[in-house]
Amino acid sequence: MKYINFENDFLPAKDEFFMQEALKEANLAYEADEIPIGAVIVANGRIIGRGHNLTERLNDVTAHAEMQAFTAATNFLGAKYLVNCTLYVTLEPCVMCAGASYWTQISRIVFGAYDPQRGFKRLQSSVLHPKTVCIGGVLDNQCSQLIKNFFIKKRKS
Amino acid sequence: MKYINFENDFLPAKDEFFMQEALKEANLAYEADEIPIGAVIVANGRIIGRGHNLTERLNDVTAHAEMQAFTAATNFLGAKYLVNCTLYVTLEPCVMCAGASYWTQISRIVFGAYDPQRGFKRLQSSVLHPKTVCIGGVLDNQCSQLIKNFFIKKRKS
Repeated sequence: MKYINFENDFLPAKDEFFMQEALKEANLAYEADEIPIGAVIVANGRIIGRGHNLTERLNDVTAHAEMQAFTAATNFLGAKYLVNCTLYVTLEPCVMCAGASYWTQISRIVFGAYDPQRGFKRLQSSVLHPKTVCIGGVLDNQCSQLIKNFFIKKRKS
Repeated sequence: MKYINFENDFLPAKDEFFMQEALKEANLAYEADEIPIGAVIVANGRIIGRGHNLTERLNDVTAHAEMQAFTAATNFLGAKYLVNCTLYVTLEPCVMCAGASYWTQISRIVFGAYDPQRGFKRLQSSVLHPKTVCIGGVLDNQCSQLIKNFFIKKRKS
């Protein structure tokens, strides 16, 4: 766990800091030959849950980074909801993960790369909880480049 | 596990039979004071995964009946996808579960009661995998009555 004493919870620098942490998770996935997507959940400047894509290792197509992080964070808190928490995730959440975020009532979502194919934003109706704020494009290039590299590597192998 | 030798995979009577099995799961949830929603996954007339809502017991708002059943079925098959499988679930899946079903590539979804508030069908864009067929309203009354009874009991207690 990391404790970061930022005075303002909504500084862009803070978002980039935690997106770097999500990228570390994405890199773990990359090294494990999983599609490289990573996530962290932050409450009061502290990472309370981490996760990366484990669909291959768990043989479970629903084992997305966000789902791992949601479960880790609620386990850590012993609470049902993730109110006052922020999800940082390197790729725009899919519909499943956006739908899961609704049930967690998470207060804020910050994602890196956009996913026009499977990202939830392509839906016309809002999927998120009405209290959830969502920001996209934080470290967009780094987040998407890692995924591109993964598929370039895959095509070569 | 149950083996049912139906000659036609798509007989309405078969759908009602397996919805009864999903209702048994929903009743297990009801008895455990969970919101009573149940699911089974069927392949070749055989139930290969079961699940009921466990959000309270697991303190996990994403622990929906369908998510349990998806994981159980893929574990049983040792396969990644649920092609040629049918999900029977007593309530119209939410956006998360519909989004999860996309990743499983499940071939068919049959649900009982409609959920106009949180069901995925309220979305204008399709969330399901393009190969997934979806049928609603099987044992609608029984499925919704169990949920109504649960909340009536809750309000009285």
